[in-house]
Order: sequence, then C-alpha cells, then structure tokens
Amino acid sequence: MGHVLLRNVIQSRYAGKVFPVNPKADNVLGLTCYHDIRETPEPVDLAVIAVPAQRVPDVMEGCGEKETKVAVVVSAGFKEVGSGGAELERQVLQIARDHGIRVVGPNCLGVIDTHTPLNATFAANMPPRGNIALVSQSGALLTAALDWSTTQRFGFSKIVSLGNKADVDEVDMIKALQDDPHTASIALYVEGIRDGVKFVEVAKEAVKKKPITVLKSGVTEAGSRAVSSHTGSLAGSDVAYETAFKQAGILRVSGIEEFYVLAEAFSSQVIPNLQDVVVVTNAGGPGILATDACERHGVKLARMEPEIIEELRRFLPAAAGFHNPVDVLGDARAKVYSKAIRTVLSQASVGAGLVILTPQAPTEPEKTATEIVKARGLFPSKPVVAVFMGGPAVAEAESILASASVPCYPYPEQGVVALSALTRYSRELRRPLRPRPKRLKVDKEAAAAILEGVERGGRISLLGHEAKRLMTAYGIHVPKSYLASNADEAGRVADQMGYPVVLKVSSPQILHKTDVGGVRVNVNARAEVEKIFEEIIYNSGRLVTRAEIFGVEVYTMVPQGREVIIGLTRDPQFGPLIMFGAGGIYANFMKDVSFRLPPISKEEALEMIAETKIQTLLAGVRGEKPSDIESVADVLVRVSQLALDFQDRVLDMDLNPVFVYEEGKGSIAVDVKVTLSG
Amino acid sequence: MGHVLLRNVIQSRYAGKVFPVNPKADNVLGLTCYHDIRETPEPVDLAVIAVPAQRVPDVMEGCGEKETKVAVVVSAGFKEVGSGGAELERQVLQIARDHGIRVVGPNCLGVIDTHTPLNATFAANMPPRGNIALVSQSGALLTAALDWSTTQRFGFSKIVSLGNKADVDEVDMIKALQDDPHTASIALYVEGIRDGVKFVEVAKEAVKKKPITVLKSGVTEAGSRAVSSHTGSLAGSDVAYETAFKQAGILRVSGIEEFYVLAEAFSSQVIPNLQDVVVVTNAGGPGILATDACERHGVKLARMEPEIIEELRRFLPAAAGFHNPVDVLGDARAKVYSKAIRTVLSQASVGAGLVILTPQAPTEPEKTATEIVKARGLFPSKPVVAVFMGGPAVAEAESILASASVPCYPYPEQGVVALSALTRYSRELRRPLRPRPKRLKVDKEAAAAILEGVERGGRISLLGHEAKRLMTAYGIHVPKSYLASNADEAGRVADQMGYPVVLKVSSPQILHKTDVGGVRVNVNARAEVEKIFEEIIYNSGRLVTRAEIFGVEVYTMVPQGREVIIGLTRDPQFGPLIMFGAGGIYANFMKDVSFRLPPISKEEALEMIAETKIQTLLAGVRGEKPSDIESVADVLVRVSQLALDFQDRVLDMDLNPVFVYEEGKGSIAVDVKVTLSG
Repeated sequence: MGHVLLRNVIQSRYAGKVFPVNPKADNVLGLTCYHDIRETPEPVDLAVIAVPAQRVPDVMEGCGEKETKVAVVVSAGFKEVGSGGAELERQVLQIARDHGIRVVGPNCLGVIDTHTPLNATFAANMPPRGNIALVSQSGALLTAALDWSTTQRFGFSKIVSLGNKADVDEVDMIKALQDDPHTASIALYVEGIRDGVKFVEVAKEAVKKKPITVLKSGVTEAGSRAVSSHTGSLAGSDVAYETAFKQAGILRVSGIEEFYVLAEAFSSQVIPNLQDVVVVTNAGGPGILATDACERHGVKLARMEPEIIEELRRFLPAAAGFHNPVDVLGDARAKVYSKAIRTVLSQASVGAGLVILTPQAPTEPEKTATEIVKARGLFPSKPVVAVFMGGPAVAEAESILASASVPCYPYPEQGVVALSALTRYSRELRRPLRPRPKRLKVDKEAAAAILEGVERGGRISLLGHEAKRLMTAYGIHVPKSYLASNADEAGRVADQMGYPVVLKVSSPQILHKTDVGGVRVNVNARAEVEKIFEEIIYNSGRLVTRAEIFGVEVYTMVPQGREVIIGLTRDPQFGPLIMFGAGGIYANFMKDVSFRLPPISKEEALEMIAETKIQTLLAGVRGEKPSDIESVADVLVRVSQLALDFQDRVLDMDLNPVFVYEEGKGSIAVDVKVTLSG
Repeated sequence: MGHVLLRNVIQSRYAGKVFPVNPKADNVLGLTCYHDIRETPEPVDLAVIAVPAQRVPDVMEGCGEKETKVAVVVSAGFKEVGSGGAELERQVLQIARDHGIRVVGPNCLGVIDTHTPLNATFAANMPPRGNIALVSQSGALLTAALDWSTTQRFGFSKIVSLGNKADVDEVDMIKALQDDPHTASIALYVEGIRDGVKFVEVAKEAVKKKPITVLKSGVTEAGSRAVSSHTGSLAGSDVAYETAFKQAGILRVSGIEEFYVLAEAFSSQVIPNLQDVVVVTNAGGPGILATDACERHGVKLARMEPEIIEELRRFLPAAAGFHNPVDVLGDARAKVYSKAIRTVLSQASVGAGLVILTPQAPTEPEKTATEIVKARGLFPSKPVVAVFMGGPAVAEAESILASASVPCYPYPEQGVVALSALTRYSRELRRPLRPRPKRLKVDKEAAAAILEGVERGGRISLLGHEAKRLMTAYGIHVPKSYLASNADEAGRVADQMGYPVVLKVSSPQILHKTDVGGVRVNVNARAEVEKIFEEIIYNSGRLVTRAEIFGVEVYTMVPQGREVIIGLTRDPQFGPLIMFGAGGIYANFMKDVSFRLPPISKEEALEMIAETKIQTLLAGVRGEKPSDIESVADVLVRVSQLALDFQDRVLDMDLNPVFVYEEGKGSIAVDVKVTLSG
C-alpha cells in the first residue's frame, strides 16, 4: 500500500520534497527512505499514513514533532471495525489535536489535487485536470469515478476521500473549497452529516460563491427517532436533510448519473442571469421529449417574440418549427443551426439554450459543434448545453464541445436536467441571504416555568391546559382553558367563560380521549357541565385503569375554521424542524406538509405555506373568502422561536388542528400536544 | 435516396430477389433496373417507395398490379406538410386499400429486420442482431438509436419507422410482433395513438406473451378537451395514456435512457417468478444507493434467512455485510463473489439478483463477470443484473456479461430500474386477464328517456333532479329530490319527504348557486319552505339576469359522511375515463385521485380506491369505524356501466360529494352534475 502511494505521489509530478518513511527500507523508488518520520531532514507539511492501525498513534506523535499540518490516514481498522477501533481513533484524534494537526480519514482512499499536482491516494488513475472538487464519504465511489474519469470529457480540481471523518468533514471541505481558485463547483457524496446546524450555516455562504451538489444516500434508512407526534411521524428520516439542503441552497441529486450531469453542467462556469430557456433541434421527437423534461424539472421555455420568429422565417423552411422548441428540420446544416442559435439567443428574455442534434443524412455534427462554441462566445452570460444523440457519428463533435467546455449529453432529458440545475443555481445566487429574524416579544419566563413544572412532576407530556398556557406565553391564540378538579369548579369556570364549552379529561395516560368517553363538546349549561364532569371522570377511570387523572379541562368551544397542522419535531443531526400542513383528520394520510429548520422569518413561513396544496384552500377556492394566512405565518414564526428557545427541552409538538378563519379574523390552535425530552 | 436505400438492401445481405425501379436508369449497383414497377419480371412482395410524393399514387397502382403485400413509403410531402399533402395521403391509402396493400409510412425512415436480414431504410447502420423490436413514430430517434447501437451491447430484431401512420400503426405492429420468434420484447416510441380502445385491447393480450415498453412523449401538451367538470379538470391530457398503459400492463418509461435500460433488461429473456431481490456488492456506498433506488422504484429487498446468513459467514470476513445488501467487502476476489452470489440466489424466496462491482485493488472484474454468468446458469428462472462501475477497468468484464446476455449497467440506479421492470412485468404476467364484468341490472330505458328529455330541450347540462333521477335509474343512491315549480308545491313535497330538507334553485345558467343565495340547507318546516322558495326565486332572478329558472329543487338533507368524488370524463383517444378521489372541498386541489378506463369490475373499483390516500381515511384511522368502501366500489361499477351505455352522449359527470357512511350503511351521491355531448 505504502509503495503504491509513494509511486502515485511521484508519478503525479508533485513538485515538493517527498520523504518515504519505512522502518525496514533504506531506499524506495529511488528515494532515501527514513525509518521514522522523526528522522526526516526537514519539517513535514503533509503526512500520508498507511501503517497498521495500531502504529498510527506513534506515527502521529512523530508528525507532531515534525510540525505536520495535515495527516491523511489511509490505514483502516478504526471506528469501522467496532469499539476497539473507535477507541484507537479517539486516541489518534487526541494526539492530532494536541499537536494542531488536521486529520483526513482514517480508513480513506487519500486525496488528489490535480493543480498542485499531487496524487496521495492508492488509486491507480490521476483524473483529468478540471474545476470540479469531488468529496466523498465512500472510497469505492471515488475509485469507480477515477477509473471512469479517464474516458470522460470533464476533469477534477480535487478529489478527497473523507473515510471515517474523525476530524476533517464536509464542513471543513466546503470552507476550504469555497475560495479555491481552481474549483468552480463542489460535489459531495454524503452518507451522514455530524453537525447539521453548522453544515447549513457554512454551506449557505459557500453557495453564494460556487454551486454545491450533494448525493445523499441512505434516504430510506429506518428513522431511529422516537415518534410521539404527527409531526414526528410525518418527518421521515430524510426530511431534515432535504430541508437543510434546500434552505442552504444546495442542489441535491438522486443518483450517481445525475451527480455527473450536474458536475459537467457547472464545469462550464456560465451561470444564466435569466430563467427562460430556448431549445433548438433538428428533429421533432427529441424536441418534444425535451419539452416534457422541462415541465418535469421546472425549466421554463421562453416564449419566442414575434421579431425573433420573423427573423427565423428568413432562413428556415416554412415547415420548420418557429416556436420553442425551434425545429430547424432534419436537413439543417451547420450554418442554419448557427443562424438559428444566434437568433434565439439574441432574444433578451432568453437565459440559456439547449441545442439538440440527431445525425441525419445532411447533418454536420462537427461543424455544428464548432458553430455552437462560436455562438456561445457571443453570449457569454447565456449557458448553452448540447445534446448530441448517437454513437460514432457524433463522437468527434462531442470532443469539440468538451474542449470548449460546452456540456454535451447523449439524451434530451440529461440536457434539461443540466439546464434545470443551472437555472436553479442562478435563482439561489440571486436570493438574498436572509438576516436572522428578529425576536418577537414573548413571555419566555412563563414558558420556562410551565416546562419546569412538568419536569418537576416527572412527566414528559404536557397536560392540555399546560400546553395551552405555553402557547399563550408565546402569543399563540388558544381557546380559553381551565383545569377543573371538581364538578362545582368546572361549572363555575364554564359560567365565567361563556357557553358552549368543551370538557376533556386531563390525564397523560389517556391518549385517545374520545374513545374512552373522555371528551364532550357543545356543552351549554352549568348543570350539564357538572353532570358531564362526573360522567367523564367515571368513564375514564373505569376504562383506563391506572390512569392518573388530573381533573377535567374546560375550554371554550370555538367556531369551525379551515384546519391546518403546525408542528415541531427534533432531528438528531439538524435539531428542531418546523412543519406546516393540512390538518385535522387529513393530517396523517394526506401528507400535505412542508418543513423548515428554525429560525424562520414571516416571509419563510409564507413560503412554507405556499409549498402545500392546502394553501389553495386557504387562498379561497370558488369565490370563497380567503383565510387568514398571515395569522398562520405568525404562529409558525412563534413556534420557530419557541423551538430555538427550548431546543434541548421540547422534543415534539403538534398544534392540530389549528382553525384558520377568514382574512383578518386570525387563527386559533384548538388542540396542542407537547412532549419534552425528559 | 433511392440509391442509398438500394445499397442498404444489398449490403444487408437480403437473400431474396431485388428489383431496382427507376425510369431513368437501366442498371443500378450491378442490378438490372426497371423503368416501372409494372415491368418487373415477377410479383413483388415488398415495395420500398422513395419517389416524389406526387408520383406515389401511380407507383402504388403499379404495386397493385404486381400483387404487392406491403409498401414502405419513405417519401415525405404528405399529411405533415398540410392539407394538400393530407389529401394525397388519403388518395394513396385508398389505392392501397383497393389492392389489399398494407402501407408503412409515408414520411418514414423505412424498416429493418436483422434476422431475415433486410435493411430497407436510408439509415447507414445495420444494428447488431438481437431480440428487441423497436417501433418509432419519430425517424430521428431511430437514426440516433441506429448510430448509437453500433457501439452497444444489445441488438435489435426489427426496427420500424411508422412515419405518418397512414395505415400501419402501433396496434398492427404489436399484433405482428407478439408472435415473432425473433422478438423478445417490444419497445414503442409514441407521440399519439389513434384508436386508444383498440390499442388497449390488443396490448393487453400481447403483454401476456412479451413485455411492451413505451416512451410516450408530449405528456405536457395542453389538453384541448373542453373541461366542464372537476373530473375533466383533474384528468390532465396525459391521464388517459397513463391509465391505458397501466391497464394494458405496458411498462412506461420517462426518457430515452430508461427506454434502453429496460430494453437491455428484457433482452436476457429471464423473467423472475418471485418479487424479492438480493443485492451483492463489494462497497457500502453503492449498496446504499441501490437500496435507496429500490425504495424509490418499488423493488422489494429480500430478507436474508438465518441459514443463508450462516452460510455466508463461513467464507466472508466478519466485517462483511450479511444482510441485504450483502457486502463482500472491497478485497473480494471472483471466488468470493461467486460463492456469495450462489448462496444468496439459493434462498427460495429470492426472485432476482443485482451484483455491484467497483474496481478496487484486489478486484477481478473479468473473472467476476464469468462467475456471474455461471451462477446465473444455475438459477435459470432468477434474472441477474450487473452494475460494474468504472471505465477501462471494467470494460472487458462488461463484454463478457453482454455476450452472455447478462444486462450490465454503469450505475446502481439503472440496475435497480432494470430489476423494477423485470419484477413489474413478472406481476403483469401473473395477473389473470380479467373477464369483462357482468352487466348489472339497471333501468337503461329510464336513463335514456331522461337524456332525451334534456336533449329535446336543447340543453347539455342536466338539472339537479334530472341528474339524480339518472343516478336512480342506475341504482346509485341519491337524496329524495323533487323539482317544485311553486311555493305551495315545494311545501307539500317537503312535508312528504320529511324534514330537514335542502332547497336549491334549478337553473342551467346559475353555476355557483350558493353565491347568489340560491341554496338553503337545513329547512325544517313547511311554512319556512314556502317562504324560502320565494326568496330563492327572487335572489336568483335578481342577481343572474337572463337565467332560465326551472323552479326550486327540494331534497332531503342527508347526514354528513366521509366525502369522496366519483366522476366520468371523455378522452378524445381513449373514450370514457372513470375517476375516484377525495371529495368535497378537497377534490380540486388535493388531486388525490385515480382513474380507469371502463368497464371495471368491483375488484378493479376496489383497486382504484386503494390507490388513493383518502382510502386510509375510509379504512378507519385512529380506531374509528371503517367506512362502507364496498358501496363506493358499487357506485364506481355502476358509473362505469353508465359510461359505456351512453358513451356518445354523456361527456362529463361529477358525483361530488358522495357521502360514505359506516361499513354496511352505504353511501349517497349528494350532488350530481352531468354534461352531455350536445
């Protein structure tokens, strides 16, 4: 292994000094070999360590003595082999920290830098030099990519295998690569992220400098999170990642192929200023397939302006397609393609172009490729993506495009996926970095006191009236509520509140209160309240043995509104997660929900609402009055603040249903469930 | 063009006689050339026509004289150039029909048969011989495919360019190819289908013989259908195709690449008997990506049995993955792969396997490929799909797999897509062809009389009470309903029906009756009915001028149930289309719907319901009693029968909401809207 590593370092034409270290050799590959790193004649910037795991701590101590800045630990036998290895890994990391050494790995393939140049991996191939930085948690994916890249049309700036991520992780790599002049885009293969909050924070800023593409696997892993709420059960194990990537402006891909399609798209470094796209094709079928793909991937086809159509008519046959996709017909030669491309790109509203070529008898693939390169030069802010379909007939043309950094794909769908990435990233670039939302005035102390009370009582679930008081402390409207401990008290309270009221048993052990006869709605008089109080206590005690009954909650019955759910759950990596969606009986199976990591501003809350289907209903269908969407956004912002104020204590929260009334009439959280971490 | 065609015919080594026909030549490419087809010395089986469009009718007449069976009209200048060309096309078709000649084209690339062999196209390349029949409406897609196929690992049996489809279309091709011994699977590129009903009928039977894959483009074309119902607006232009393909058991793909992935998968001709799949990999990352893809594409990973895990432990290192995906680790050589593959395939419940290989230092790609081929031979009913990641390191191994017809892909996602197609097709094969559902007893005459009444009145919309009577004729429950023309009559009727009742203005011009004060619910006494009758008439006449008011519909107010929508709309290609989904205010924006082409059996109706999310609610959530799903299925079957009984007359129908009650208590169509074709 050490031999292969050294050979790769030498063959990559690394310009600095290289010191082989091996206790059993004096000379390796023509270089003087040292028996210990401590014996090297000079300080060592980078150590590449491929010794048995047990020996790594000593080597690391040696690195410390030689003022080493970074150690790439290729050796396996650490955390991945169990608890013994994990202990060894902790030991290595401690030594590194003591000496200020950053560690890549252990259990990794190594690192490659094509510009320095340096190949410090045990993989055989040095990839073509390019501007994509590829960072992977899986070494095997890199091996495959390296082998594959030798026959591909785009290159890499850096390739980094993170292995066990004892020290250096994606956050460090993003920080480093965002300012690397040789890197135009960052591509990450991720299986899990340690510190989600930090990751989002760092990625958000980096995305403003260059695009980040992520392939996150393990989307189907069974969530280990305890699920005590609707929100928790609706937030599958992947939702936090999905939400985090979206909020950070990261482009997520669903597979390796899309990963490479995007990498090639961004390698051209041209990001469009505008979203509208134009397609030029010499065949109808592929044009329609591209149109379909545009619809699927959210790419907007430009509407061609009359002057442009007029101009196209001057040189295209009458049977051509003048609307987008522009069909130059099967007999179009390179000159016709060229004129058509220049004409459509000259339309001011067009942001990017897709040129499709199928090899028909009169087609001139190479010349057309050259014309595409020229046309692209005339519109430097408008990326052009090519789709050349076929095999040998278009191979040479593909090389021409590749040398000029024009992304070229074999299928229309891939071309559209590339354009979709370019336009999405252009939107990200233009989206202003949002300032942290201002704190709203809330009664945090009152809220803390409620939670303390619950915790003191050894409970983790808030009783109905406690949850409602918590909402009130954060300015969220709830029905007037009171916990009555006897019938007389219940009657008195109901009289004060006004009728009708709802009576509900208060007991942390009774989850489905309706099923045991523990709930009565629409109670209209004091005598009735007193009678029902006794019935509820009787029913509950009879049907749920060992239920701790705290009394009966009396609360105002509020008028029916549109039902939504607002919730909060906690993700192990990313912390609190806010949810909005269709509520009531529809909440759990319609799965019409959207998520955000707090803090969120009112604007972001409105975006969350806009992402769901229920928003159509709230906006007012068939001439009905719109609902008070603003008030829902306000509740979301308050929940967001509560989530962060008590992020270590509140585990899960459901406001379901929240009744939303007509515009200007607010909304009210009818039922609130809160679970603490305990 | 004629020259190229002739050269291709000759170069394809066609074994039969070839007669060149050209009025201006006596000898072409060494063959005697005739000046007119009528001069050829023998009858002509197949004529390939590439003369100017205007001359095609005469050539076709000549074909008639020579007893030609099939004419492939390559010539363009027909329907595709406008009405003049369309007229010419009709003329050609008429001549062909008069002489019993089948026509392929016009405006097509021609046909290829690699087994005869014969290349009667003007495309340069003869594709490798294989077992996939490719039929395309787009010539350009075929040109690209032919060029590309020369460098690919799987071949074609027939390639047919349908062009304008004046005569021969997809239906004819499916009929012919289903019994072609050289064809294992049929791949269609379709832009539109003429006779949808016929297509489904023919495809349904063919699918029982071999898989059909369809790439249908134009999914986003704006529907030209008039939309007068919720059902119509929910059935986008593509829904009928999607439904038809599903009901026929056709596998639909979303792009060209997937088209080829499936073609390669089916070229192996092994269809699994069981659905469970096992993955063997030498790297964790690609294994996780495969697992993710399995979840996304509905592929079920087998649960490895203890004995199998036991056996794997005998030869795999302790750090290996013994559960599915089985990870043989990066240092696995071919022998280890082989043992692992044989072991996991030996599990009785496993139906198919996916073998992933990444080229790591000790990996033996070619030997592993050979072992895969051998292992496959041991389990002839269990297809094995390979994913060999990388470039030059796995190229030779890919060839080994290709020669043995083991599908091999570069990415895990593609391997999973292939397995998904194989297992889906295996389910199709096992699904019994359903007998046409039996007719239910309905009062078709009464229904016809209602429609005639409406048509005689020059209307296309049924009034509320007419629509309800139509439902009654077909055995669908509706509230008791009566059209009262004066207050006294309304009062009398309400007394007979029993209270509470609903009063609703009856007027075809007033669409949103609630908005104009034309509806009153929960009316409880005769005096009230009479008073409200007058109010409704006054409101409606005042707010909607020129509304034709037929009176006020009085109907029983029924108790609230779960709300669903059942509907019917008509597709231009496929005819009637039945819909089921979440109803009431949720119908239009939740888009929680499923579709079928009638006729449907009760079993299919239950499947429709099961495809929606609302079915979870109907099944009973959180301990609530389940709803009467059977009764909903019954309504669907009755709507299906009505749809076919009156398919030329009923255009659109909404039963919305249908209230569904507890199990055993039936359901009732509260509001019914019916639009006729007019």
